Amino acid sequence: MNTATLGFRQPIAATIEAVARAGFGAIAPWRRELEGEPVESVARRIRDAGLAVSGYCRSTYIPAADRDAFAAGLADNRRAIDQAAALGAACFVMVVGGLPEGSRDLPDARAQLVEGTAALLDHARKAGMRLALEPLHPMYAADRSVLNTLAQALDLAAALEPAPADAPMLGVAVDVYHVWWDPALSAGIARAGRDRRILAYHVSDWRRETRDLLNDRGMMGDGVIDLRAIRAAVESAGYTGAVEVEIFSTLDWWRREPAETLAACAERLQTVC
Amino acid sequence: MNTATLGFRQPIAATIEAVARAGFGAIAPWRRELEGEPVESVARRIRDAGLAVSGYCRSTYIPAADRDAFAAGLADNRRAIDQAAALGAACFVMVVGGLPEGSRDLPDARAQLVEGTAALLDHARKAGMRLALEPLHPMYAADRSVLNTLAQALDLAAALEPAPADAPMLGVAVDVYHVWWDPALSAGIARAGRDRRILAYHVSDWRRETRDLLNDRGMMGDGVIDLRAIRAAVESAGYTGAVEVEIFSTLDWWRREPAETLAACAERLQTVC
Repeated sequence: MNTATLGFRQPIAATIEAVARAGFGAIAPWRRELEGEPVESVARRIRDAGLAVSGYCRSTYIPAADRDAFAAGLADNRRAIDQAAALGAACFVMVVGGLPEGSRDLPDARAQLVEGTAALLDHARKAGMRLALEPLHPMYAADRSVLNTLAQALDLAAALEPAPADAPMLGVAVDVYHVWWDPALSAGIARAGRDRRILAYHVSDWRRETRDLLNDRGMMGDGVIDLRAIRAAVESAGYTGAVEVEIFSTLDWWRREPAETLAACAERLQTVC
Repeated sequence: MNTATLGFRQPIAATIEAVARAGFGAIAPWRRELEGEPVESVARRIRDAGLAVSGYCRSTYIPAADRDAFAAGLADNRRAIDQAAALGAACFVMVVGGLPEGSRDLPDARAQLVEGTAALLDHARKAGMRLALEPLHPMYAADRSVLNTLAQALDLAAALEPAPADAPMLGVAVDVYHVWWDPALSAGIARAGRDRRILAYHVSDWRRETRDLLNDRGMMGDGVIDLRAIRAAVESAGYTGAVEVEIFSTLDWWRREPAETLAACAERLQTVC
């Protein structure tokens, strides 16, 4: 359970308890939920609740308007990678950032992404924390991520870590919401599997009538994504990790009681995913 | 000038006159504007106004829930192709359609697209009308177009018309709004140029704060797209046709007087495109 699905309305302690009580096996917390709490105590709470940590969300944006801001972003990401390690997360999720404010230079932002990821990979190796590059839907290219397809993420991983070992430190997070439309999806998943790069698998659904670019994701089964087909492809490619639910939904699920949303997720995971 | 930019608020005769008066050299009308008007009289009006026809919008959706609906869609498209020929359009713009209502089967919808385009290509050859496959932004994959990247469009064109002549009948419309984010854009434009497949080039802009998935396109210069770079790539690839403005904007430009919108387009075409 990615905690974003519950809309960040409770302290992390209550969320951990609710997720465990609803029967989930793993949790993916967000950094904003750990502010003001020692990471070790959150890690202990999660362990005591019997939960694994399927991922830690998420990186500070990498492309920046100037070199000082770029360096500050990397420093912040290094701290987050250390937190991910303290939590025992399966991976640190990288939402890489869009165009810097005022910029139209996509090639430059993507060059910054390569440079920044290379620097963070060095730190990740020392921390023993795997980095999961998450390609975001192309509709976020301006403001959230200049990494927009699985092929692009795999090209980046291959460039920075050319001969992946059994357990490469640089991989990808496959989120159905971002990649379901891609004509090259099957090929990308197979390639990611061959290189053992699939570090996370996120589910939600694409509502045919999407009312908001960011916060109108659907519950699994309420949209058009062929969730069974994508999961079969990911598992055929060798992925054995969690199926993580991540739903941003100011218009619907974030208005409901956390227990109701968790129950719906649990039921849909069994019936439609 | 694509007439959608003016919001379809005037009869086609008034739009033709306004576009010509504002100094544009070509117009791309929509089929809905020709309802109830003999196509020959509209064609004459456009010619008399001194305008070329840079494209005719647009195809009826191809993927359908059953074979009868599929056949009906093709029949309708054949009539539209004949209208495009009567108008002397540079191309017939194909917005190919999304998943049929209730379907999650993207591979099937894309198979229908191949079959339907092959059938229409036969008709287009007889009518002497070139078909411009327009890849739409991935955010429209559910409800408007299962054709989502330039590479996918070029693969389809190459499959159905393998050895393009000097003037292939099956090409692509490159619309910056749909393709600007694509890491493979430069490669795609170059490939399209080599095969002489670029039949149309559409401009608008991507607003960093996009408020609506369909109707919040920006005026050129008001967003993040590097319009000069893409135009340079398209022209380096051999495209010599019109630079066509197509802006859907219920929230801004469609609320303004057509003359104001036309003047803004004319100015921006000179200064930022």
